Amino acid sequence: MNKGLVFIVSGPSGSGKDTILAKLFAKCPEIKFSISSITRGMRENEKEGEKYNFISRGKFEQMIKDDELLEYNEYVGNYYGTPKKPVISATEKGDDIIIEVDVNGAHSIRNKLTDAVSIFIMPPSFAELKNRLSGRGTETAEIIEKRLSSALDEIKRATEYDYVVVNDDLDIAVDDIIKIIKSNHLKLKSQKHIIDEVLEKC
Amino acid sequence: MNKGLVFIVSGPSGSGKDTILAKLFAKCPEIKFSISSITRGMRENEKEGEKYNFISRGKFEQMIKDDELLEYNEYVGNYYGTPKKPVISATEKGDDIIIEVDVNGAHSIRNKLTDAVSIFIMPPSFAELKNRLSGRGTETAEIIEKRLSSALDEIKRATEYDYVVVNDDLDIAVDDIIKIIKSNHLKLKSQKHIIDEVLEKC
Repeated sequence: MNKGLVFIVSGPSGSGKDTILAKLFAKCPEIKFSISSITRGMRENEKEGEKYNFISRGKFEQMIKDDELLEYNEYVGNYYGTPKKPVISATEKGDDIIIEVDVNGAHSIRNKLTDAVSIFIMPPSFAELKNRLSGRGTETAEIIEKRLSSALDEIKRATEYDYVVVNDDLDIAVDDIIKIIKSNHLKLKSQKHIIDEVLEKC
Repeated sequence: MNKGLVFIVSGPSGSGKDTILAKLFAKCPEIKFSISSITRGMRENEKEGEKYNFISRGKFEQMIKDDELLEYNEYVGNYYGTPKKPVISATEKGDDIIIEVDVNGAHSIRNKLTDAVSIFIMPPSFAELKNRLSGRGTETAEIIEKRLSSALDEIKRATEYDYVVVNDDLDIAVDDIIKIIKSNHLKLKSQKHIIDEVLEKC
């Protein structure tokens, strides 16, 4: 059986990453999503095990000690991280799995899973990024400026990724990611067993 | 403008490579095909400039001297080769170009064009390869054995390629190649200008 592959997906606020991934999972329900472990409290619209596993600080720190995280981060007093086991077990079952993570997390995962394929989602232009981050015009100029500057800091690190998908048209962006996933299964590494099979029989 | 990419396509007799490529060019007429230069005489069903440019031995030897070939080979007294100029000029115009070539030719081209993406087309199994090479049962066992052995020698070198496409279902194989072509345009190298554009405007 073919092993599944790990895809790291990042993109700044304004890239439309969440909408793209929601559409991708609706279209390809066989693709797994890596659920983050976090120590902050559950919010009203959240559900345990949907996007996050809500765990205690003690348990999170034990996972750090046991090297059970592919990456983690502390933000405003809470831990956020990607547990290793579900990712490894998905690929061993032959499932592809997507890890949605920021540029720092992507960097850490790449060091641990050297075969992971990384995809950066980009806004189509600076003007469109600014437009998307301005929202409905209810934010102050200062907040918009801060969002923009943080998005640009992430975009500077897009060069660390294997693939760059531009989200100009949502459907095209989703199809681009599907093409990247499928074509990676056609790489020599994933197809090697077929060569071996044909030669073995001769 | 995005530069075009070079795709090297190989596959043994029985892989169905020619049928796949014919269907691919019918489906994607924007993709260019590298026309080989050869010194043998034109056959009845052939046309100058279609699959081959028929040139003199003297001219071919001059091309070798001038390093105008990406690869070449001498077979039963005739030269066969891939001229460099049309390939480079296609990619500079933004066109993708496919070079259909054997495993030795692919090896030479990879050394000269390190960015070229190589695809090996495989039969789905040994049994099916044998079946396809047996043809309509009009060949002697000796000829079939020779074809099979030469196909297996090529398959042994499939591990030199970036991608392996299995031709079990013709339409799937054609789509696989299209996915490989499109996804390579999403690689960082081809998308770098978009990152630069967004950051330049900020």
